Amino acid sequence: MAVYTEVSDEDLADFAAQYAIGAVLSCKGIAEGVENSNFMLVAETGTYILTLYEKRVRREDLPFFLTLMEHLSARGVECPLPLQGTDGRALRELCGRPAAIVTFLSGMWPRRIAPFHCAGLGEAMARMHMAGADFPMRRANNLSLAGWRPLFEACRERADEVKPGLAAQLADELDALEASWPTGLPAGVIHADLFPDNVFFRGETLTGFIDFYFACTDQLAYDVAVCLNAWCFEPDGQFNVTKARLMLGSYRRVRPFLREELDALPWLARGSALRFLLTRLYDWLNHPAGAFVRPKDPLEYLHKLRFHQQVRGPGAYGLD
Amino acid sequence: MAVYTEVSDEDLADFAAQYAIGAVLSCKGIAEGVENSNFMLVAETGTYILTLYEKRVRREDLPFFLTLMEHLSARGVECPLPLQGTDGRALRELCGRPAAIVTFLSGMWPRRIAPFHCAGLGEAMARMHMAGADFPMRRANNLSLAGWRPLFEACRERADEVKPGLAAQLADELDALEASWPTGLPAGVIHADLFPDNVFFRGETLTGFIDFYFACTDQLAYDVAVCLNAWCFEPDGQFNVTKARLMLGSYRRVRPFLREELDALPWLARGSALRFLLTRLYDWLNHPAGAFVRPKDPLEYLHKLRFHQQVRGPGAYGLD
Repeated sequence: MAVYTEVSDEDLADFAAQYAIGAVLSCKGIAEGVENSNFMLVAETGTYILTLYEKRVRREDLPFFLTLMEHLSARGVECPLPLQGTDGRALRELCGRPAAIVTFLSGMWPRRIAPFHCAGLGEAMARMHMAGADFPMRRANNLSLAGWRPLFEACRERADEVKPGLAAQLADELDALEASWPTGLPAGVIHADLFPDNVFFRGETLTGFIDFYFACTDQLAYDVAVCLNAWCFEPDGQFNVTKARLMLGSYRRVRPFLREELDALPWLARGSALRFLLTRLYDWLNHPAGAFVRPKDPLEYLHKLRFHQQVRGPGAYGLD
Repeated sequence: MAVYTEVSDEDLADFAAQYAIGAVLSCKGIAEGVENSNFMLVAETGTYILTLYEKRVRREDLPFFLTLMEHLSARGVECPLPLQGTDGRALRELCGRPAAIVTFLSGMWPRRIAPFHCAGLGEAMARMHMAGADFPMRRANNLSLAGWRPLFEACRERADEVKPGLAAQLADELDALEASWPTGLPAGVIHADLFPDNVFFRGETLTGFIDFYFACTDQLAYDVAVCLNAWCFEPDGQFNVTKARLMLGSYRRVRPFLREELDALPWLARGSALRFLLTRLYDWLNHPAGAFVRPKDPLEYLHKLRFHQQVRGPGAYGLD
């Protein structure tokens, strides 16, 4: 639940006056999202989302994220579109933080994942990858291979507080990933955080993606691997090959998925599992007492990592 | 920040189908309010608030609250209006909790209180008191005199953890209030929780009251006393007589305020201060570690209580 910054009505009125949205009728903090402060902003011209970027988002990365949303939106990928102010700028400041207003995207994120969600996800992800192909800006994925070791070192000493032996397991996995990480696969813009709470549906129709604040330039198949972890495990920990097949099947109808990408999936899925295990572990060990946000369980991702460690090829995911 | 219950899209669609609001386009938890789970619900016909009543609200009290909002709304008092379902009922169940949809009230609550806010508040409060005069239902104020001693007993042993000597001060104050609590003043429906976050404004215009879930039948001047505490102290603890004068002055232009009510204000303000001191103290001592809601500081109300204890008459508030 995330509203870290309180915005006064006076500050908001001054801010909104820099856009052609009419007077503000209402502004309520949204109890979702972890990284930033989000508000549902009702103005005379409609409903918008106001985001104040909190300390985890680097200010110098914001033009990449906002320009990407404009780029994708212009190519028919459903996502929030940053509003330009009357001065032509989309990014400005509010309460000492970088801030932007984006269009409101209808739909709700699915609490219980059905197979049709995975099919819709695969298609929309592939369309996003295609639409991003000519996006000219670049941003390295600082939460990929090169970023994991520093994150691990920051958690190493206390990792065994969460589970005895965890530090040693993480060290071994990091060594293995550094030795075998796939390279040379088709690359472009990826979302890098396509969890269910970032994908909206109305009924069985996917209405769009939100929260592009981990988007970066990386191998496209890594996005697929993130989704295998985030969408294809059941709440009891079982991997659901039907969901994985539907996701990749509908992806492939939009963008070909190379044999090399398929073969790389087990390593990409291990890396993706380690990435979320490490960031959750870091948050678990470092969240301040009394914080608003309840940290997510890192061990969910240890379970997923172990599953991928015993996989011998994409056939284990039901994919070929 | 309050969303205690997660509502799935399927459950929500079934629930919304019982109202004539069209399909649900979006539903986002609101990061405000402490007692219940509130969602901003965007449907084809407009924007609404969905509330799930959590354990602090007694189910048997809900018809009082919802019928009161209908009553006040019908008499021109701006407040959320509960929507009736196609079966004529406003109150039903969602995710095992009592739930209702109410109309959306535009405006924002003031973060910095200016004198004009107090003037608007006084007038609207008096209009609400007048409009409630013929409301036929009754609900005792269980957080008035009779409710304070049990609350105190529940906190007594640990009160000094918050401030040494606090338990003794509370015991003395409770004795004094039990000996001198005003009775026989004009009574009717009061809101009983008119804090700034329950009063919305657009610019300098008050747009309405929300959150009637402490409303009850009590002496009307007690509502004024709650507002003296909640609106007329500056952040540095100083009492602002200008704000108090504006509030009562505009109240009186709508509803006469008797000499007896004026004279009773110091005791009513002490009681109101003790009420919020006790409930905050209880929450402070009993909130679970890692809870979403940051408890409010009880000692803010100890300071206010002490101010009222040394008051000799309404003149100390700038009132006569």
